[in-house]
Amino acid sequence: MPDTWISPERVLMGPGPSNIHPRVLRAMAQQTIGHLDPHFLVLMDRVGEGLRHLFQTRNPVTLAISGTGMSGMEACLVNLVEPGDRVVVGVHGYFGERLVDLAARVGGEVTRVEVEWGRALDPAALIDAVRRVRPALVACVHAETSTGVLQPVEEIAAAAREAGALMLLDTVTSLGGVEVRIDDWGVDAAYSGTQKCVGCPSGLAPVTFSERAMERVRRRSTRVPSFYFDLALLSQYWGTERIYHHTAPANMLFGLNEALDMIAAEGLEVRYARHQRNARALRAGLQAMGLRLFADEAYWLPSLTTVCIPEGVNDLPVRQALLRDWNLEIGGGLGPVRGRVWRIGLMGHTSSPANVLYALHGLHSVLAGLGVSLPDGLAAAAQALEASA
Amino acid sequence: MPDTWISPERVLMGPGPSNIHPRVLRAMAQQTIGHLDPHFLVLMDRVGEGLRHLFQTRNPVTLAISGTGMSGMEACLVNLVEPGDRVVVGVHGYFGERLVDLAARVGGEVTRVEVEWGRALDPAALIDAVRRVRPALVACVHAETSTGVLQPVEEIAAAAREAGALMLLDTVTSLGGVEVRIDDWGVDAAYSGTQKCVGCPSGLAPVTFSERAMERVRRRSTRVPSFYFDLALLSQYWGTERIYHHTAPANMLFGLNEALDMIAAEGLEVRYARHQRNARALRAGLQAMGLRLFADEAYWLPSLTTVCIPEGVNDLPVRQALLRDWNLEIGGGLGPVRGRVWRIGLMGHTSSPANVLYALHGLHSVLAGLGVSLPDGLAAAAQALEASA
Repeated sequence: MPDTWISPERVLMGPGPSNIHPRVLRAMAQQTIGHLDPHFLVLMDRVGEGLRHLFQTRNPVTLAISGTGMSGMEACLVNLVEPGDRVVVGVHGYFGERLVDLAARVGGEVTRVEVEWGRALDPAALIDAVRRVRPALVACVHAETSTGVLQPVEEIAAAAREAGALMLLDTVTSLGGVEVRIDDWGVDAAYSGTQKCVGCPSGLAPVTFSERAMERVRRRSTRVPSFYFDLALLSQYWGTERIYHHTAPANMLFGLNEALDMIAAEGLEVRYARHQRNARALRAGLQAMGLRLFADEAYWLPSLTTVCIPEGVNDLPVRQALLRDWNLEIGGGLGPVRGRVWRIGLMGHTSSPANVLYALHGLHSVLAGLGVSLPDGLAAAAQALEASA
Repeated sequence: MPDTWISPERVLMGPGPSNIHPRVLRAMAQQTIGHLDPHFLVLMDRVGEGLRHLFQTRNPVTLAISGTGMSGMEACLVNLVEPGDRVVVGVHGYFGERLVDLAARVGGEVTRVEVEWGRALDPAALIDAVRRVRPALVACVHAETSTGVLQPVEEIAAAAREAGALMLLDTVTSLGGVEVRIDDWGVDAAYSGTQKCVGCPSGLAPVTFSERAMERVRRRSTRVPSFYFDLALLSQYWGTERIYHHTAPANMLFGLNEALDMIAAEGLEVRYARHQRNARALRAGLQAMGLRLFADEAYWLPSLTTVCIPEGVNDLPVRQALLRDWNLEIGGGLGPVRGRVWRIGLMGHTSSPANVLYALHGLHSVLAGLGVSLPDGLAAAAQALEASA
């Protein structure tokens, strides 16, 4: 038999997963429990409450899908789109493209409203498309993990509602690190993952469905083409009926519950401010090094910073050296920006001053080792940290 | 904020989940890791190898779906069935019914071949249906979790192959506790869960697809209606291409890898013998108490024993007392046998002589407390344990 496999304990500053607090890891290591145990039902209720707080919603149907963030996207689309439904998707990065792909797979007739990567969607263009197409569903990404852009959504959601459409929001890279206000914004359905700003390993997908969205699900003329993601069934499992649907991934929920407890203890505003402060310092440091930020300044995303790879520098050797010599993971670019940007995450437990300084120092050192001599970013980052302390 | 939630540490002898060995729980509590980290790719390869050993297959496409066992069923059906495809499903319990439901959801034209709950499917009836219907797919459950029946599958798989159909097998309650020989039996696709005999918490679904099955997937005339479960994409993520598909649930895979290591160290034959020995002792004890076993004697399932609830005894108060006073979970009946049977699992780490004696004693005591005085089963169980030591 081969030797035991041991996790190398990285500093995880890619686009997710982020590092997990020991409290959450310990919670996950408790003995597992049956999915109909009275204690487990208490846990499900707690997780529902914690997620409602995080999403800032009163939606009764707020639960964790038993899959990764991507399964959350799929769960929303298989329930909200029927074959032939018109769907307007705002595309400003890789995950907007995924929304298009998945909406088409379930038979949606998709209208794309696009903008160049690195910029936010123009609400006017989306509103125009919504008024023209009269879709059943409007969907876009709140925090584009591929570009580091934070999308304002209130205007778009209002236009969707005015046109009688449902509004679906991807909050995978925002939830838990950046303000998300489902009810105030008029969002009907949203999904996320646990492994970025929520502070729990990958494996669950928080979703929330408004009463309007559930009404749409109940009035479908075709069956939801998925049993596993059927929200009508899942809401009976998570709701008071407790009708068995599948054997819940109990230990993942132990972790999520603990992460939600930690979020409640920290406070949402304090948590968002922490993500902002550390990202500001990282940005200040990168700019002091002479590096150019990729995302539109007006829409920068506190949980994920995209930085342009300097002219003449190869992406992969830098990231490999960071991993090998500094035990530090950062992300490369996806699709059209592959080899052109790095993506540096400061999410959840990873978002700390220590990691900001460590990453800046590691990057500086690795670039120097490759013969690229840049100014040092540490002083600028430290100054930014102190200014907002 | 409410108090911290703490798992009550049950003895889990229901139909799953089963108790998890501390080694596996500790492995899951390691710091998480990125899904493209070179160390993680090593882990994926190890898990693939471990699953091939467990399934007794050489199928390159052998991987863990990022969802619970139920998602494994769905993953197999969305990939292998196209709208209008004829599917023959053997139904001898609740999970056979689920196969019918899911095959119909993805557009399959389903022919059911049924048998009374508690009995095994008659291969002749299935073979007859296969020859008559000429289906694209034949599917049945190897170990029916609702009835405790172990289904022989070789003849059925041979008939499927002869008719040009693929054979799909549900191994949720057999894999890791009862012999499963995918290649020798001529099974084309199979799925399982991790939380029963495999010894890892719920949250992953091992699947294996033969080359014939993958050929069918590649030659589909319609797109797989699910992105999350698209085996062509998943096999590129788990295979040498490593094309990003979703952020793998790393900590669940830490646990599965450790559980697979433990299985390899124990040895499959020894592990199957352990499950047999403990189940035999439980059955001997229950029979000595004067209780009647539910499943057909010729097809009893070593991982799950079904026992008829004695005349005049109410199901729920007994199970509640076992949980409350003995910290012991057993399962009730599903569907038509609700209130008529108990389901007692001895799976994975739970399958031990200590648990056999504990459950017999607890059940005896609880029944006595409710005024149902039965003979003691301990001596018979101990004798059975010694006879096969």
